[in-house]
Amino acid sequence: MTGKIFVIGLGPGNEDQITPQALKAVADATLFYGYKPYLDRLDLGEHQQAVASDNRKELARAREALDAAAAGAVVAVVSGGDPGVFAMASAVCEAIETGPSAWRGIDLEIVPGVTAMLAVAARIGAPLGHDFCAISLSDNLKPWDLIELRLLAAAGAGFVIALYNPISKARPWQLGRAFECVAAILPADTPVIFGRAAGRDDEQITVHALRDARPEHADMSTCVIIGSPQTRIVERPGKSDLVYATRFARRPS
Amino acid sequence: MTGKIFVIGLGPGNEDQITPQALKAVADATLFYGYKPYLDRLDLGEHQQAVASDNRKELARAREALDAAAAGAVVAVVSGGDPGVFAMASAVCEAIETGPSAWRGIDLEIVPGVTAMLAVAARIGAPLGHDFCAISLSDNLKPWDLIELRLLAAAGAGFVIALYNPISKARPWQLGRAFECVAAILPADTPVIFGRAAGRDDEQITVHALRDARPEHADMSTCVIIGSPQTRIVERPGKSDLVYATRFARRPS
Repeated sequence: MTGKIFVIGLGPGNEDQITPQALKAVADATLFYGYKPYLDRLDLGEHQQAVASDNRKELARAREALDAAAAGAVVAVVSGGDPGVFAMASAVCEAIETGPSAWRGIDLEIVPGVTAMLAVAARIGAPLGHDFCAISLSDNLKPWDLIELRLLAAAGAGFVIALYNPISKARPWQLGRAFECVAAILPADTPVIFGRAAGRDDEQITVHALRDARPEHADMSTCVIIGSPQTRIVERPGKSDLVYATRFARRPS
Repeated sequence: MTGKIFVIGLGPGNEDQITPQALKAVADATLFYGYKPYLDRLDLGEHQQAVASDNRKELARAREALDAAAAGAVVAVVSGGDPGVFAMASAVCEAIETGPSAWRGIDLEIVPGVTAMLAVAARIGAPLGHDFCAISLSDNLKPWDLIELRLLAAAGAGFVIALYNPISKARPWQLGRAFECVAAILPADTPVIFGRAAGRDDEQITVHALRDARPEHADMSTCVIIGSPQTRIVERPGKSDLVYATRFARRPS
């Protein structure tokens, strides 16, 4: 028996933003592992089975999936957005590195997708239009002081900053503290974008000046994008404002 | 007459990685603007016309497209990858901000895509598996010393670094200098991924230790990903190595 494991990015949640490669992988697999909200987006047949698990048990989920693939199943581990951005691809690689040597022989196909910051950016203009970074605000797997160091380094060097995992019940204060950190460096009128469920029916995208940005503007489904001094707002009568980062940049003064 | 402008991301170049949203936008438009290699990827009908322009004339191209949309045409500006990542979306926003006020009333739809770093990452493992940044090495629109500042800030704070526009005939030395910069901070065995044409027939993906990374490993179609101290290589007998960034991280020592 020859099993296989797909690690699939389902995109932001809009059917029009899922790639044909992802749909083909879903069609090929029979056993699906993931966080329930992502599994719920699949339209599975009778021969296909979904196994839901909590989002904080990524390594255990990866191991279970690899175990099934090693036994001959064609398995899919699914993520929203792109599986390589704060999602399951890293956990699957870690499981392969630290697991039985036979797992290194399993056929592995990682299927990229449109990650949240790109979907949010497209809905509002081009806020990632020059150098940018992506930081997960979750301090489950890294110390908070490292996150602060990265926020300060990024803001100081003029990067636009996309924040993933900005807030949750278990992590209520981190986003507010992140705003305080970058406010020590960035102008108070720097635009901050709160992009919730971009491209989905329940989409909600708002922009606040950094001085007015509050953790309450975000929830678990939000990607927060903090602008740089090169970020511009273009007012459009009768339409929503455009927010974009200029292609040109000067050295921060 | 009501014109419209789409800014479309065609993905990395593999038909299986272009979204349905992008295909629908291509079907709706009649006039296409872009760099010739991207326009060549379109399968246009007789009622559709492509206008190619040089990649260094992005603002002029955006203005021409907006002018046509203002006159009533349904226009598409196409980019490879994602249009918001070092591509046309920022130029279109800039053209709207600085152009005739009527352009602010034009219907604008930006269609996200799978950007190069995600496609490269998926082919080799999960090198963007924790905090990362994206930097364009082109110094046409920003001073080189700002690029060095960002490279040093990113490497020092432990970000994985994806380099876009790493090299061209007009910019031959920048990539080598970028490697020198980060080598002052990162261990000499830090993995550097050269991902050329990921997902396409002519794909070529190689990994070198930072001490051996050379500009000659890259060309205009390459996305370079410089690892962090958290980047791991997993050898797989009979298969290519996996490269991934661990989900956990420590504060850089």
